[in-house]
Amino acid sequence: MTLETVSQTRSHAGTQGVYSHRSAETGTDMTFSVFVPDHAEGAKLPVLWYLSGLTCTHANVTEKGEYRRACAEHGVIFVAPDTSPRGEDVPDAADEYDFGQGAGFYVDATQEPWAKNYRMRSYIERELPQVIAANVPAADMDRQSIAGHSMGGHGALTIGLRNPDRFRSISAFSPIVAPSEVPWGEKALGRYLGSDRASWREYDAVALIEDGARHPHILVDQGTADNFLVEQLRTHRLAETCDTAGLDATIRLQPGYDHSYYFISTFMAEHVKWHAERLG
Amino acid sequence: MTLETVSQTRSHAGTQGVYSHRSAETGTDMTFSVFVPDHAEGAKLPVLWYLSGLTCTHANVTEKGEYRRACAEHGVIFVAPDTSPRGEDVPDAADEYDFGQGAGFYVDATQEPWAKNYRMRSYIERELPQVIAANVPAADMDRQSIAGHSMGGHGALTIGLRNPDRFRSISAFSPIVAPSEVPWGEKALGRYLGSDRASWREYDAVALIEDGARHPHILVDQGTADNFLVEQLRTHRLAETCDTAGLDATIRLQPGYDHSYYFISTFMAEHVKWHAERLG
Repeated sequence: MTLETVSQTRSHAGTQGVYSHRSAETGTDMTFSVFVPDHAEGAKLPVLWYLSGLTCTHANVTEKGEYRRACAEHGVIFVAPDTSPRGEDVPDAADEYDFGQGAGFYVDATQEPWAKNYRMRSYIERELPQVIAANVPAADMDRQSIAGHSMGGHGALTIGLRNPDRFRSISAFSPIVAPSEVPWGEKALGRYLGSDRASWREYDAVALIEDGARHPHILVDQGTADNFLVEQLRTHRLAETCDTAGLDATIRLQPGYDHSYYFISTFMAEHVKWHAERLG
Repeated sequence: MTLETVSQTRSHAGTQGVYSHRSAETGTDMTFSVFVPDHAEGAKLPVLWYLSGLTCTHANVTEKGEYRRACAEHGVIFVAPDTSPRGEDVPDAADEYDFGQGAGFYVDATQEPWAKNYRMRSYIERELPQVIAANVPAADMDRQSIAGHSMGGHGALTIGLRNPDRFRSISAFSPIVAPSEVPWGEKALGRYLGSDRASWREYDAVALIEDGARHPHILVDQGTADNFLVEQLRTHRLAETCDTAGLDATIRLQPGYDHSYYFISTFMAEHVKWHAERLG
C-alpha cells in the first residue's frame, strides 16, 4: 500500500496533507486530504470523515471548509476523500454534473459499465480507513465520526446509519436525505444499481431508518435559501422519519443560508466541536 | 456611479457581496468583494481593506481567507479589491505571472503602454473608497485600516505609510517590503514607472520609512518556510529599517508556514482582531 505525498503544508497549528494512492476498489488512483493537528509524540486523535458533494474533489472543503482552526482546537483529524473514481479509463457521463465522475453517490455500483470502478461505498467504508490506519500514526481508528455535504451528507448519513458502532456521531450540511424520492437520487441510484428499488434502500437515509437503522447522534444543518431544498434535499422527510421512528436527531433550518461553502464554513466549527464532544 | 451586484450570500452572520463597477481610473470594469456583518439599522462599522497578491483576484481571499467569523465577531467590514485592471483591451505581458494583468503592484503607471489603465494606486486610495462610501451605508469611512498579502502586503504598507491619518493600522502577510531591491519589484516598478529609481521610492515601504514616513501600528507575519522569503520578500529589511527609524513595528516570523492561504488563514483572525482593537 504505497501512499504518494502530493503536498504537506503547515496550517492552523497542524499539517494539511494531500495524498494519492492506488485503490484496489476503484481500480484508479485516488486523492484525499488529511489534516493532523500538532500532537504529542505517540498521542492518538479521533478521526472525522467529511464526504463532499456533487462535482467536488477533496480540494473544495480543504480550501474553503474552514475546519482547521476547530480541528486544531479540539484535537481532531479531518479526512476528506474524493467523490468518485476519475481518469480517462473510467466510464463517465459527459456533460452530466450529477452522474459519473464527481458523482459517485457513495454506492457500490452493480450495473455496467459502472460496476468495475464505481465502488465508493467499499472505498470509504473499508479501503480508505485501512490506508489511514496504516499511514497516519496519530489516527485513533476506535474513535471515528462522519460528516458530509449534499451528496456527501447522503453519504455520511447512510454510511453512519449502516455502521453505528464505528461512527460515534453523524452530521450533515444540506444532505440529500431521501435519494429514492428525488431527481438526483433516482437518476444516480437507477443507473448505478438498476431498476429494482429495493436495492436502493441501503443507500437512502430515510429508507434505512424506516427499515430499522438507528443512530443516537445525528446533527443536520440546512439553509432555507438553498435552491435545492424543495426538489432535491427535502429535509422535512428526515425530520418526519426520525419523529416516527423515535429517533432524537437535531435538524436545524438556518435562515437565509444557501447551498455553498459560505454556508458550510459558517457552521463547520460547530459541527467539529459537536463531533469532538462525542468522540471523547 | 453604478454598482452591479454579482452575488450576495449569507455567511457567518453577515452578507458576503461581490460587486462590479466601471472604474474611471482604470478605464475598465472592476470587481471587488465586501463582507458586511449583521448590524443594527443605522449602525456604522469600521472598514478593513485587504489587498491581494500576484495572480489573485478578489476571489482568492474571499474563498480561502477565513476572515468572516472574526469580522462578524468584531463588527468589521472587509473589502477585497482586484489586483489590476483586466480585459482584452488592457495591455498585458503574456505568460508573465508577475507583471501586467493580476500584477498591478498598487502603482499609478507612468510608462506606456501601461499608464492609461494601470492606476491601482488611485483606484485603491481614491476611487474605490468613494464607491464604498456611496454604496455601503454601514461603512464608517472615518475608521479604516489596511492589510494585504505579498504584493498586496507591499500595497498595504505603502498605502498605509503614505496615508497614516486615514488608516489607523497596517498589517501584512509575507509582504514585499522593499520592491526596489528584489526581482519582482525591480521588474514591475521599472516597467510601470521607468528607470528613474527616485520615482520608485513612494512605492517601497523601506524607502518610504527611510524618507520619513511613519505609522504607529504595523503588524507583519512572515512564514519561515516561504519559498519567496530570501529572494523577494526580505522581511529583515523592514525590521532593520524600523529599528533605525525608531518605529515600533511588530514583525513576527512564524515557524514552518509557507506563502499560501494555508498560512494567511491561520493568522487572519488575529489580524482582524488586532485591527478591530485599533479601530475602536
